[in-house]
Amino acid sequence: MQEECKPTIDTGLRGIVVASTNISKVDGAAGKLIYRGYLVKDLAENTTYEEVVFLLLYEKLPDPEELAAFRAHLAAERRLPDNVIAALKTFSPDALPMDVMQAGVAMLAQDDPDVKKIDRDAYLQMAIRLVAQLATLLAAWHRIRKGLEPIDPKGDLGHAANFLYMLSGEVPSAEMSRFFDVCLVLHAEHSFNASTFTARQIASTRAHMYAAVGGAIGSLSGELHGGANVRVMEMLMRIGSVDQVEGYVQQELEAGRVIFGLGHAVYQVDDPRAHILAPMSKTMGEQIGQPQWYEISQALEKAGKAAFKARKGIDIYVNVDFYSASLYYAMNIEVDLFTPIFAISRIAGWTAHVMEERFGEAAAKPALYRPKSFYTGDYCGPDECAYVPMDER
Amino acid sequence: MQEECKPTIDTGLRGIVVASTNISKVDGAAGKLIYRGYLVKDLAENTTYEEVVFLLLYEKLPDPEELAAFRAHLAAERRLPDNVIAALKTFSPDALPMDVMQAGVAMLAQDDPDVKKIDRDAYLQMAIRLVAQLATLLAAWHRIRKGLEPIDPKGDLGHAANFLYMLSGEVPSAEMSRFFDVCLVLHAEHSFNASTFTARQIASTRAHMYAAVGGAIGSLSGELHGGANVRVMEMLMRIGSVDQVEGYVQQELEAGRVIFGLGHAVYQVDDPRAHILAPMSKTMGEQIGQPQWYEISQALEKAGKAAFKARKGIDIYVNVDFYSASLYYAMNIEVDLFTPIFAISRIAGWTAHVMEERFGEAAAKPALYRPKSFYTGDYCGPDECAYVPMDER
Repeated sequence: MQEECKPTIDTGLRGIVVASTNISKVDGAAGKLIYRGYLVKDLAENTTYEEVVFLLLYEKLPDPEELAAFRAHLAAERRLPDNVIAALKTFSPDALPMDVMQAGVAMLAQDDPDVKKIDRDAYLQMAIRLVAQLATLLAAWHRIRKGLEPIDPKGDLGHAANFLYMLSGEVPSAEMSRFFDVCLVLHAEHSFNASTFTARQIASTRAHMYAAVGGAIGSLSGELHGGANVRVMEMLMRIGSVDQVEGYVQQELEAGRVIFGLGHAVYQVDDPRAHILAPMSKTMGEQIGQPQWYEISQALEKAGKAAFKARKGIDIYVNVDFYSASLYYAMNIEVDLFTPIFAISRIAGWTAHVMEERFGEAAAKPALYRPKSFYTGDYCGPDECAYVPMDER
Repeated sequence: MQEECKPTIDTGLRGIVVASTNISKVDGAAGKLIYRGYLVKDLAENTTYEEVVFLLLYEKLPDPEELAAFRAHLAAERRLPDNVIAALKTFSPDALPMDVMQAGVAMLAQDDPDVKKIDRDAYLQMAIRLVAQLATLLAAWHRIRKGLEPIDPKGDLGHAANFLYMLSGEVPSAEMSRFFDVCLVLHAEHSFNASTFTARQIASTRAHMYAAVGGAIGSLSGELHGGANVRVMEMLMRIGSVDQVEGYVQQELEAGRVIFGLGHAVYQVDDPRAHILAPMSKTMGEQIGQPQWYEISQALEKAGKAAFKARKGIDIYVNVDFYSASLYYAMNIEVDLFTPIFAISRIAGWTAHVMEERFGEAAAKPALYRPKSFYTGDYCGPDECAYVPMDER
C-alpha cells in the first residue's frame, strides 16, 4: 500500500499555502510588510497603534471621528474584572509572565458577555476587549509580582502611554510614548507566523476567541518565536561591550550556535521593522546614559553579517527582535516582559485572523486543520503487535 | 511573478504529511487505531488507563513492578497546589469548564520545578504531573462551582475511580470505575487530530509543555473537535424518544445540518472506539433506569446511516463521541463536563506528542511550523496602497 512507504514530509509546512488572507502580506524578497494594503513603514511613521488596530479589525483606516470613537471604546474596555485581579494575586511572584498571560486570557473569557455568541459582531467586541485588556493584564501582573497594587488605567492616555503608565505609575514622556507606540505598530501583525497559525487552527475547530488567543500566547512564548527578544537582550548583556563583539560572533559560529536576532524564516533582505527600531534604540539608550546596548547591537549586526558571509557565503539580516531588545531595555522595561509586550501588540493581528478564519473565505472550507502523519511503526512494522498479557511481560 | 497567481490552497491540510510519528496510527480504511503498536481494542479489553499512559510515555507496556511504581507515582502527583485551588475559587460558577481548564493548566506551570528545563526527563516529569493533575483540576472546579469544597484525591484508587470519587464524593462501583477507565483508554490518543497538532505546533517554537497543553485544550473545546460529545447529548435530549428519531433525521438533513456524532475526518468504516462504548452505554443506562438515551442513540445510528445512504449515496459511521455522550450521562456526569473529560484522557497523547516534537525525529527539522498564505490584495492589488493621511480620509 502506498501509505506504508515513507512519504515526503513537509517539515514545518514551509512551502504549503494553507489559506487566503486579506490581513497582511510579508514580501520576504522585497523586504515589505503590508497591513491591509498599507506599508508598515508608512503606518509606523504616520499612525498610532489604535489606528492600526482599527485598520486590522475594520479593514480601513479610520477617519477622525471614527478614530476618536474607537480610542474611547478601547479606553472604556481597559479595566480588568475584580475576580481576574484576585486570581492574579494567587500566583507565585516567580511565575513566568507568558504563563500568567495565557492563564489570564482564559480567565477573561468568563466575564465576556459575548463569549458564547458566534456572530461577527460578537467576535469584533471580543477582539476589542482583548486588545484593551491584555495590556492591563500584563501591567497588573507586573505590579502584583512586585508586591504593589495594580494601577487603574487612565482614560485620557493613548494605548501605548497608558500601558507604560500602568507599569511604572509615571506618565511617560511624549517621546517615549511615541517610541513605544511605534513598537506596538511594528509588532501588530505578521501573516501566518507560528502564533497566528495556532490561533487560526484553534478557531478552525469553532473554539471561541479566547481559546484561540490563549493558544497563540503559548506559541509566542517559544524562543524560536516571540521569546527571541529576551534571548537577544541576554546575549547583549553577556557580550557586555563593543570590543567583545567580534570574539563572541566567532566563538558562537564556531560552536554551531545561532546569533539571536539574526536571520528570519521569511525575509531574504532587511526586515523592514528592524531599521525603524534601531534609531529609537540609539536615542533612548543615550537618554538613559547607557548607549552601549545600541552600540553593541550595531557592532554585532555588522560583525554577524560579515561572519555569515565569510563562513557560510550567505547574506543574513537582523530581524524585528534585534533592535527591539535594546530599545525596551532603554525604556526601563524588565527583560522578561519583552515577549509579553510582543503579545500585547500582536493581539491585534491574532484577533483579526481569528475573525477571518471564522467569517472570511476560510470559513467556507470543509472544517478544521487536520494534517496527516506517517506512522513509523518502530514496534511491529506498519501494523499492530500481538497483545502481550501482563504475566508475559 | 508566480506568487501573485492564486495558488492551490491546501484547506485544512488534509492531504499533507507534516511529521513522522511513533505514537499512534489511525487506519481509517481498516477501522484500526493503534497506540505504539497495540490495537486500542486490545488495550481497552485488557489494560487500564495507567498502563496506556505508561505505554504512550515510555514506549512499552509496563511489567507488574513498573506498573505498580507508575500507579504510585501518578497517585503521588494528584494533589493540586493550594494557590491553584485559591485561583479556581475566584472564577464565576458560570465559567465554561474548558476555559477554566485552559487557565488551570497555565497556572500549574508556576508550581512545576521542571518548567524551565529542556531535557527529556524534565518533560517526562511534567507529562506525568499533567496527567495526574488535570483530572484533579476538573473535579476540583466542578466542586467549587457547586459551592462545595474540593475532595482530596484517594491514593488507593486507580486514576478512573479516583476521578469519579473526587467529582461526587462517593467511591464508584467496580463496574462504573471499569467503564470509565475504558473511556479514558479509548480517548487517550488519536494521532494528529486538531488539538494534538496544536500542541505540537506550540512545542515546535520551543515553548514549554504547559504552554502547548494549554493551547491543545483550547483546540479541543471547539464543537468540530472535542466539543462534539456535548452536542451529541444535547441532540439526544432534543429528540427525547425513539419514535422521534426518524423525523429528526429527515428534518436535519433536509435543512442541510449535520447529525452530531455521525461521520469522521479519517475513518471510512466504523470508528473502532464507538462499538466498545455502545454496550457500556446500554448497561449503565439500564442500571439508572434511563435506557432511552442508548435506545435513541441506537435508533439514530440506524436511521442516520440509512438516510445518508438514501439521500447522498454515502456510507456514514458513528464516531467516538456518539456513544460516549449517553454513557457519561448514565454515569451521572453533567453534560458540560463531557469535553473536559475528553481532555483528562487525551492529556496522555498530547504530552507524548510534545515530547516527540521536542526530542524525536521532528526535533531535527529546521524549526517551527510556519505555513504560507496567499494575500488576496483586495485593497490595492497584490502590492501596497499609497498612504492616505488623516485629513484626506
